[in-house]
Amino acid sequence: MKVVIIGGVAAGPKAGSRINRLCGDAEVTIVEKGEFLSYAGCGLPYYISGVVKEQRELMSTPVGTVRDCVYFQDVKNVRVLNRTEATAIDREARTVTVVSREGIEQKLPYDKLVLATGAQSVIPPIKGVELENVFNLKDIEDAERIKTMLGDKKALNAVIVGGGLIGVEVAEAFQEMGCRITVIEFQLQILSLVDPEIAALAEKHFEANGVKIKTGTKVMEFKGETKVSSVVTDKGEFPADIVVMAVGVRPATGLAVAAGLKIGPTRAIAVNAQMQTSDPDIFAVGDCAEKYHLLTGQPCYVPLGSTANKEGRVAANAICGVHDAFPGVLGSAICKIFDYSVACTGLGEGAARAAGFDVVTCLSPAPDKPHFMPTAKLLYLKLIADRKTRKILGAQATGPGVADRRIDVVAVALAAGMTVDQVAHLDLTYAPPFSPAVDNLLTAVNILRNKMDGYLSGVTPAELHAMYEAQKEFTLLDLRSPTEYQQMRIEGSTHIPLGTLRQRVGELSREKPIVAYCKMSLRGYEGALILKNAGFKDVTVMDGGLLMWPGKLIKG
Amino acid sequence: MKVVIIGGVAAGPKAGSRINRLCGDAEVTIVEKGEFLSYAGCGLPYYISGVVKEQRELMSTPVGTVRDCVYFQDVKNVRVLNRTEATAIDREARTVTVVSREGIEQKLPYDKLVLATGAQSVIPPIKGVELENVFNLKDIEDAERIKTMLGDKKALNAVIVGGGLIGVEVAEAFQEMGCRITVIEFQLQILSLVDPEIAALAEKHFEANGVKIKTGTKVMEFKGETKVSSVVTDKGEFPADIVVMAVGVRPATGLAVAAGLKIGPTRAIAVNAQMQTSDPDIFAVGDCAEKYHLLTGQPCYVPLGSTANKEGRVAANAICGVHDAFPGVLGSAICKIFDYSVACTGLGEGAARAAGFDVVTCLSPAPDKPHFMPTAKLLYLKLIADRKTRKILGAQATGPGVADRRIDVVAVALAAGMTVDQVAHLDLTYAPPFSPAVDNLLTAVNILRNKMDGYLSGVTPAELHAMYEAQKEFTLLDLRSPTEYQQMRIEGSTHIPLGTLRQRVGELSREKPIVAYCKMSLRGYEGALILKNAGFKDVTVMDGGLLMWPGKLIKG
Repeated sequence: MKVVIIGGVAAGPKAGSRINRLCGDAEVTIVEKGEFLSYAGCGLPYYISGVVKEQRELMSTPVGTVRDCVYFQDVKNVRVLNRTEATAIDREARTVTVVSREGIEQKLPYDKLVLATGAQSVIPPIKGVELENVFNLKDIEDAERIKTMLGDKKALNAVIVGGGLIGVEVAEAFQEMGCRITVIEFQLQILSLVDPEIAALAEKHFEANGVKIKTGTKVMEFKGETKVSSVVTDKGEFPADIVVMAVGVRPATGLAVAAGLKIGPTRAIAVNAQMQTSDPDIFAVGDCAEKYHLLTGQPCYVPLGSTANKEGRVAANAICGVHDAFPGVLGSAICKIFDYSVACTGLGEGAARAAGFDVVTCLSPAPDKPHFMPTAKLLYLKLIADRKTRKILGAQATGPGVADRRIDVVAVALAAGMTVDQVAHLDLTYAPPFSPAVDNLLTAVNILRNKMDGYLSGVTPAELHAMYEAQKEFTLLDLRSPTEYQQMRIEGSTHIPLGTLRQRVGELSREKPIVAYCKMSLRGYEGALILKNAGFKDVTVMDGGLLMWPGKLIKG
Repeated sequence: MKVVIIGGVAAGPKAGSRINRLCGDAEVTIVEKGEFLSYAGCGLPYYISGVVKEQRELMSTPVGTVRDCVYFQDVKNVRVLNRTEATAIDREARTVTVVSREGIEQKLPYDKLVLATGAQSVIPPIKGVELENVFNLKDIEDAERIKTMLGDKKALNAVIVGGGLIGVEVAEAFQEMGCRITVIEFQLQILSLVDPEIAALAEKHFEANGVKIKTGTKVMEFKGETKVSSVVTDKGEFPADIVVMAVGVRPATGLAVAAGLKIGPTRAIAVNAQMQTSDPDIFAVGDCAEKYHLLTGQPCYVPLGSTANKEGRVAANAICGVHDAFPGVLGSAICKIFDYSVACTGLGEGAARAAGFDVVTCLSPAPDKPHFMPTAKLLYLKLIADRKTRKILGAQATGPGVADRRIDVVAVALAAGMTVDQVAHLDLTYAPPFSPAVDNLLTAVNILRNKMDGYLSGVTPAELHAMYEAQKEFTLLDLRSPTEYQQMRIEGSTHIPLGTLRQRVGELSREKPIVAYCKMSLRGYEGALILKNAGFKDVTVMDGGLLMWPGKLIKG
């Protein structure tokens, strides 16, 4: 069996190696356009920042062997043609035409073909985008060019166009290199994979670390003679010694389109659960292949190295006759912003509403370990669930606390179709150095249950802020301690410490709606129940409390 | 509705507070024998070590309010009688007799009664156990006594009897206080909740940190005049200025037994999924109540604060007519040993075999982040699965790498009854600062799949070591690089670096069984497949590689 694989970075080598392991007599050839093989593209920002010292580390095995052509031949019994571009697929003749950098063309016959052509950076046709020092960051060559330009220079003005995962990682890397950074994002928030409240916290953290974030801002032009010198936007001009374009990637489907393979609605190559394209002898894996969302069943495009590896294995299994099926993705993602992380899985609030769910959400900011442990750190958690089925739909988190663990737990719960009640009873590992006795996630899920069961009516901080700005008639009831209230508070709020509320209910108007809150709104919830039990009709709780309040606070 | 709750530490206050939240007109009384309420018993070792500075932190809310009787009355509308012992339950009359420390007796009427009497330390009848400076660590008073004894003294000889979770946490705490510590464990390993390979790594790490671990050792006597001075065991005598007994706890069921409530096979109070005892008006929650194991359906006893909180909520829901059911536990647990953690969930290998499963296991030691990230740390992972159903049964981990995240993912997968194939396709969050592109857990689960599918035959390091010691005829094939081999190796092993194996298969005997391995056995697996493809019949791989080898290694 002859197998040709086009693409040698992630999913391609994975598929090739496993095919050889399963079918020792298969003749596997990988065709790779670039110089380098099987490298960690996701590690590029960390190579730029110097966290990863050497280029070769990105393409080595854990014990330091570089995965070059010789390695693939000797260890994996896989032939690699690097610096070689596949230019055409002849599905009738079952051949792939390839051309080496030296211009030598040949036709490779195949029984099975695997497309692992990856993604390419989107380069918008902005005036000046071709100027020197305007970079992409897609491969090792890009990273080398950026590193060379940065050199030992300090305090360069860097502009990053695009505040998605890559833009955010590059911003952090450039900050570590001593640049003055501005991130320009066309949308109203960075990290559009999370909801606005979570993105706002991430933006705040960037600003606190000296990175300027300009959202809702459109790049009009890159100015400069030969080298870029500034970025002109609809909100002003920003000096720029270096620009990185990170406005997104799209699947590299040129070959597939030319070969007449079916392309899906996301413009990636359509595949079934075995990663098979519309031609049963051709498979597509990794960033060029379309994904399905596990919760909606709809096609989606979430290019990630983690998924690419799984898909490479599934395609290899299918080619070798081992039963396997890739069920789809949840859009799980994570990134680091200095000492914060931002992570998500499943559907955001907007996507959940758009998909027709009866959405219930909660915001729960809380320490990620018992508050008495000095290692405890704040984690902001948002959960999304469906009132009708009580199923959990998604989770998002940010802050200095441990996010990945909680988001991964939800990812598994989503894959299993669990209800909030099932999640609340999960037997997660517990000891004080690792988590509170009632883990943040379980506290948050219990808030959802209380909402679904009618014990808690929440109002989001954004909704409340809009009511407040509109000067609606309602009582903002702050239940914190006198010391906390003294330190900071919302103007016009009524202050009754929770411990005295039962005695002082008489002071509150029964005519006006009451919104109760505290720092995180756990006391807000207690207070609302006291008021309900005392006969107050219209009592809600501000989700997440003052920690999530987007408006102004008076201090001192 | 009058509700009486006996026990004011964890599950009791949880149940009481929630009952009042759900049924505002319920009259809830908590009876607590001790002084202190609602405190974090699990935090006691961290209070002894000084990580937690003040006693009051253990019994405060996250914003620093001490949860005392006044707090419960004002905030939770729950009356608390502390320093008051419940001495009898009259189920006919529906009353609980209580006696205050001042000797005042009264009968409290109840409509619903909740037993949250917790657990008590097991004190074996060893000679001298009553000597001064032989302590338990069950409550705050115990912790204060230990702290007072330790004072500012340095280099005390401390002996901890019992190497379970509490023993291990106390050992770490005492080490931080500058004691010379010996842990004496009757069983052949510490931390019997994990399998021997994982426990052995934990023991090694204790020893590396200067804590002596004496397993398979029985305490015969505590010697001393008024104060303990040494511990006599069947393996010698150990000097001791202080001893902590940590041989386990058992459910405190005196009241329940006297009241004729049904006791389960684990000697805890039998309950249904609503935490209801054999008397429908009496509930039991927390460490005095029996649990069910989610995987075996059998009663088990795993007393943990995390479970106690869930059970308290379930009982409150049942009492207030809110539908809820506690499904059971998985035995999930975690502890910290200096910079290591040890964590587990589900069934260990032995328990899985005993329960009749067709057990497949794997050992996978690997970095918990891409090896090129300087933050990457080693995590030793063991998985247990059932060959017949392909369901995952359990997971255990130790090492400096992040364990809790992986073990929690498995805990959710166990609760959902997932197969190894489903786990392999989970969409977990991925970015280089957090995990490798193929997460450790997914690599490990793919090893299990390869074993189940017949691509990989493993031999455990322990089995291999036994074969080696018995001088059986086989080839120990080390596939690492010459540098690695030079640094350390098993005596008598054959060295062929993986990259040269295809050329050098002729050097290997086809008559003898071959066991292939490397550092972690990923190359071992590749090598075994090369040999199988070359016609070798009897080729196995040492699970986990040299990192898991329990025998001697030649160095240099």
